[in-house]
Amino acid sequence: MKTCPFCDYSGPSKILGETDDAYVIKPIDPVTYGHVLVIPKRHVETATEDPETTALAFLRAAEWMDGSDEDFNLIQSNGPAATQTVKHLHVHIVPRKEGDGLSLPWTP
Amino acid sequence: MKTCPFCDYSGPSKILGETDDAYVIKPIDPVTYGHVLVIPKRHVETATEDPETTALAFLRAAEWMDGSDEDFNLIQSNGPAATQTVKHLHVHIVPRKEGDGLSLPWTP
Repeated sequence: MKTCPFCDYSGPSKILGETDDAYVIKPIDPVTYGHVLVIPKRHVETATEDPETTALAFLRAAEWMDGSDEDFNLIQSNGPAATQTVKHLHVHIVPRKEGDGLSLPWTP
Repeated sequence: MKTCPFCDYSGPSKILGETDDAYVIKPIDPVTYGHVLVIPKRHVETATEDPETTALAFLRAAEWMDGSDEDFNLIQSNGPAATQTVKHLHVHIVPRKEGDGLSLPWTP
């Protein structure tokens, strides 16, 4: 039986924060310092499956960055062509610095 | 007097959708077919300034894609190092296809 790695999260990555409805963890392969994943506890696969849970995940992501003076991107992926690997909705918070070399669809 | 280009949006890009609290427009330089911006009507600059407005923008983005079978990314930028150009919060919906050549921070 295959279980969802993001339901009842217990590792291997460190849990950095937790509310009654979401976890914040460090990803296994962070692309930069401070890169975290915000994972709603409710199991939904994609943003369209339950827009309210999607909104909640981004609410918690914005709250996670409250008080930070870093620039950052919020990124969420739906489906394999969009680079979604774990089929449980999660939001990437990616802190950014000028010249960090990280790409987005509109950067070279 | 410099005004915000995303407050009371009236162009030049086509308004594709509107609710009482948000617009959906086609960006001036779409990176792929179906690339749109979801813009909350309330003026906030970044995700952390008002997490509830951030959540609302992503709620409307998820609703916009309801019924689509496309893979897609949701992307939002905070600050110049994160590629934010217009200082009024907006969410990019970027439809994706395998081999489309678009990059994210974790892709080559």
